[in-house]
Amino acid sequence: MAGNPFKGRDVISITDFTRGDLELLFRQADVIESKAGSKPLDGKVVALAFFEPSTRTRLSFETAVKRLGGSTLLISGEEAISVAKGENLADTITMLDSYADAIVIRHRYEGAALYAAEVAEKPVINGGDGRQHHPTQAMLDLYTVYSLFGTVDGLTYGVLGDLRYGRAASSFILGLSLFNPRHVYLISPPQLRARREVLEALEKRGVPYTEVERLQDVLGELDVLYVTRIQKERIPDPREYESLRGSYRVTLDLLESFAKESLKVLHPLPRVDEIDFSVDSSRYQAYFTQARLGVRVRMALMNLVMRG
Amino acid sequence: MAGNPFKGRDVISITDFTRGDLELLFRQADVIESKAGSKPLDGKVVALAFFEPSTRTRLSFETAVKRLGGSTLLISGEEAISVAKGENLADTITMLDSYADAIVIRHRYEGAALYAAEVAEKPVINGGDGRQHHPTQAMLDLYTVYSLFGTVDGLTYGVLGDLRYGRAASSFILGLSLFNPRHVYLISPPQLRARREVLEALEKRGVPYTEVERLQDVLGELDVLYVTRIQKERIPDPREYESLRGSYRVTLDLLESFAKESLKVLHPLPRVDEIDFSVDSSRYQAYFTQARLGVRVRMALMNLVMRG
Amino acid sequence: MAGNPFKGRDVISITDFTRGDLELLFRQADVIESKAGSKPLDGKVVALAFFEPSTRTRLSFETAVKRLGGSTLLISGEEAISVAKGENLADTITMLDSYADAIVIRHRYEGAALYAAEVAEKPVINGGDGRQHHPTQAMLDLYTVYSLFGTVDGLTYGVLGDLRYGRAASSFILGLSLFNPRHVYLISPPQLRARREVLEALEKRGVPYTEVERLQDVLGELDVLYVTRIQKERIPDPREYESLRGSYRVTLDLLESFAKESLKVLHPLPRVDEIDFSVDSSRYQAYFTQARLGVRVRMALMNLVMRG
Repeated sequence: MAGNPFKGRDVISITDFTRGDLELLFRQADVIESKAGSKPLDGKVVALAFFEPSTRTRLSFETAVKRLGGSTLLISGEEAISVAKGENLADTITMLDSYADAIVIRHRYEGAALYAAEVAEKPVINGGDGRQHHPTQAMLDLYTVYSLFGTVDGLTYGVLGDLRYGRAASSFILGLSLFNPRHVYLISPPQLRARREVLEALEKRGVPYTEVERLQDVLGELDVLYVTRIQKERIPDPREYESLRGSYRVTLDLLESFAKESLKVLHPLPRVDEIDFSVDSSRYQAYFTQARLGVRVRMALMNLVMRG
Repeated sequence: MAGNPFKGRDVISITDFTRGDLELLFRQADVIESKAGSKPLDGKVVALAFFEPSTRTRLSFETAVKRLGGSTLLISGEEAISVAKGENLADTITMLDSYADAIVIRHRYEGAALYAAEVAEKPVINGGDGRQHHPTQAMLDLYTVYSLFGTVDGLTYGVLGDLRYGRAASSFILGLSLFNPRHVYLISPPQLRARREVLEALEKRGVPYTEVERLQDVLGELDVLYVTRIQKERIPDPREYESLRGSYRVTLDLLESFAKESLKVLHPLPRVDEIDFSVDSSRYQAYFTQARLGVRVRMALMNLVMRG
Repeated sequence: MAGNPFKGRDVISITDFTRGDLELLFRQADVIESKAGSKPLDGKVVALAFFEPSTRTRLSFETAVKRLGGSTLLISGEEAISVAKGENLADTITMLDSYADAIVIRHRYEGAALYAAEVAEKPVINGGDGRQHHPTQAMLDLYTVYSLFGTVDGLTYGVLGDLRYGRAASSFILGLSLFNPRHVYLISPPQLRARREVLEALEKRGVPYTEVERLQDVLGELDVLYVTRIQKERIPDPREYESLRGSYRVTLDLLESFAKESLKVLHPLPRVDEIDFSVDSSRYQAYFTQARLGVRVRMALMNLVMRG
């Protein structure tokens, strides 16, 4: 493809890409399943180095690569821990760089993917590192909106949950900053508000946003509600946790009382109880759709990066 | 294939199938290896969700899928435990349903496979759940008999070991109820007799059976001896366990003293010491054959379910 | 290939092969990547039974097989431990023999690979067992020398580290005994000198060697320095360990002060700190090259063994 901005490129942060890059990705995702039969990654090997466990992200990438005819090399679980203990990350990445044609890395430490990209000659895809970056999650989240609404622009978004430590939420907000949302509501308890640099990205791009504490106050305005988990450990006071828990729990009752009929609820999954099962078979549910579309986005991305 | 009764179907219990269905499966298993070269599952992805560990069953399915040109997605070991803790089974199955073209599930809880089949749109294959159902094990056991004797009918069977909690034994007996054995001897200590519903299946289909305690009493009559392990934990009294252990241990001496020359010994494996190594290179051994034929049966099954 | 000495063969020890066999292997390794596109192992399944963990060796074999179009079945980590506890090795190997077209085995016990080869009809490749044998590591080490110098003969080698318990070092020395090195320096503390049988192999083939304790004493003469790790546990006295540690640590300073400009440093990896990072980007570094070439050697080997 002429002018493919993904070819041979590392994918570290959603903000490394332009709106135009992502629109190209979305168009590719729309048609990638019809191209899979020709096995564009036939003979290619992709290393999946999951130093932090994530079954969903691992399986999504693994499915994407295999559906394109490629093979995977997996390091995960206890083996990944043991590799990380046994040698420095640079040596591990150098090994994978000489075995594979691309490397997907997941790591708990901020900057691990960027570091890997500096060591490796082959493209490195960040499968999530630190608290802020999970670019392929943001790509699939934005693509889900694009698929459901035909556009990412002009919509009112609510991003709910742990906006401070949750990398999916941060990456989604950063991704929104590349488009023109009508408004972004950042809905969280005060302790878990979005980080300064994330807010600055919105400001710099002129995306209007408001930080609020209660979902009910803005639910009626939303076209898209992006829900993430609040981990108990983040809230020191147990009573406070219990009170918050209820207020950020999305139920069908709540949606039917306050939300637009056209509202779509996203969630990077897995969920615990922040979205009630009653929502699953309702018109609002888009999180299962999102998981399904994620494979298409990762297929399109891997194809663009590895083949051009 | 016209009238393929397996196409797109869930495989939950051996009793979901008719004798005719199984005969079709056996005929397919006879020829499946010659068809593998055309890669009938090329481009297909099968999820192997092993929430309970079983290396043999996992590798047998994995071999079957790969020999047909398909790919696998594996969840097992610590990761499976962690996934099971982290989210409800329905969400996990919904994810696999959107990634894969079929799902093989192994689970310690009765009914897990049926529940997964209700959640998933794609075919769900029970790789063993609870105490009773392991339909593909029964299919391969019956196919082994069919391969060795040319028929499942008219033979005298002994099923030895833990008939109460062992799902392989239960499924084999249920599978026999679909055919016309001459006689089925259910050989176990009193505490480990077959469950009521298993005996009822034999009765309903008019299969003559007898419950006995000592192998020696019936060994001379048998054409097929199906051995399963008795787990120590099942017998509360250690002395009783020791006495039982000896009486259910199949040795070459025992076989040469009491068995027909044409007797074949099956075992779902792994074994501990219930079959002595002396039997391995004797004419009686069929358990390694059984493991080998298992791949063929699973190849045939996956092909029938996924391709038709 | 006419007269292929690897066809269908078990690969247990480097000394099972002749110099001519290895030269054939090297010539195949030179061209194997250009042949990979034709997928010579298409439809073949290779079992990787890693009863002892080794991420690098596992991934190297897995890459080799997949790049040739074959599939892998993996047993490793906790699962391998649990399989090893649950049944005897012969039964496990018999299972793998009936599922796969070849078996790669890694095991901590001396002789495990040979035993597996006796049980299995399919070719068994020793991926490292006991303290002495790791034939494919020796093959790739020798191939690295051959690639860098155009020959294995006539060079002066230093083998540094734990020559007693380290199977990579032992296998490399045994491999050198098949060629005509100018001289082999065996550099180790007295407690970790090469085993009697390894020295005898050198003597029997007339390879001149000297056992020395200090790298500095011979560094200037070396064309190839093969470094291995000294495990702390091998040296009972902690102060002695600390003194040794320093004396066997290869730094860029040391190399620039004493070594030939053309010296190449090899290491089977992973390293801890026996080679300083300063060496990584120097002219001396050949250990990353070695890892990369390892995939080619294993591709050539698997192709020769499985296809001929």
